[in-house]
Amino acid sequence: MTDSENDPETGSLLRPKYDSNGLITAVVTDDSSGDLLMLAHMNAEALQLTQDSGVAHFFSRSRQCLWKKGETSGNIMSVTEMRIDCDQDALWIKAVPAGPACHTGRLSCFYRKIADGKLERIA
Amino acid sequence: MTDSENDPETGSLLRPKYDSNGLITAVVTDDSSGDLLMLAHMNAEALQLTQDSGVAHFFSRSRQCLWKKGETSGNIMSVTEMRIDCDQDALWIKAVPAGPACHTGRLSCFYRKIADGKLERIA
Repeated sequence: MTDSENDPETGSLLRPKYDSNGLITAVVTDDSSGDLLMLAHMNAEALQLTQDSGVAHFFSRSRQCLWKKGETSGNIMSVTEMRIDCDQDALWIKAVPAGPACHTGRLSCFYRKIADGKLERIA
Repeated sequence: MTDSENDPETGSLLRPKYDSNGLITAVVTDDSSGDLLMLAHMNAEALQLTQDSGVAHFFSRSRQCLWKKGETSGNIMSVTEMRIDCDQDALWIKAVPAGPACHTGRLSCFYRKIADGKLERIA
């Protein structure tokens, strides 16, 4: 293996850089619209389950447990592509959502824009 | 002010939920292509400077200092829209990048996809 291939920044080895809590940030975008749907976190188990099943799994920081997105709501997310960034501490997940990503019922968690220091709902 | 307007999840008040280090995660997408460019962090000062200047500022966790993206490389990011998520602990920044977002010279930090447990460069 060349040095280049062994380099986390340029190589072909998946070496997620988990934080002190064993988590990596995952950004989920809509495979069709490209819109940002949600931001969540994965531990190694969630990442493996997501790769194996093709359905997004996360680690809930509030509940401190593995979390299959949509397990109760039915709004699962079918993963079409996963990418990792240069220093391998963030994931980009493109997915087809079966329903709203947000617990408020909106398609995306990012339904408010910042304008003049305040928030404006756009969905 | 109604309860609804006062609610961080539905209201119009910008109340970023900073983590224990005083930071909030910021996801930057390309205003034209919609592609995810990078993920970084902001402290309150960086967020204010970004709002005031229209140019993305972050807080460098490695260097522990305010960081105007592109200050040395010239590859600044002009912000076209900022959104915040339901629980106000993540920002979505749409921007027009003046050049590559990644320090490796690639347009996006997410230039490798995960395939069969390995990484494939796509840029």
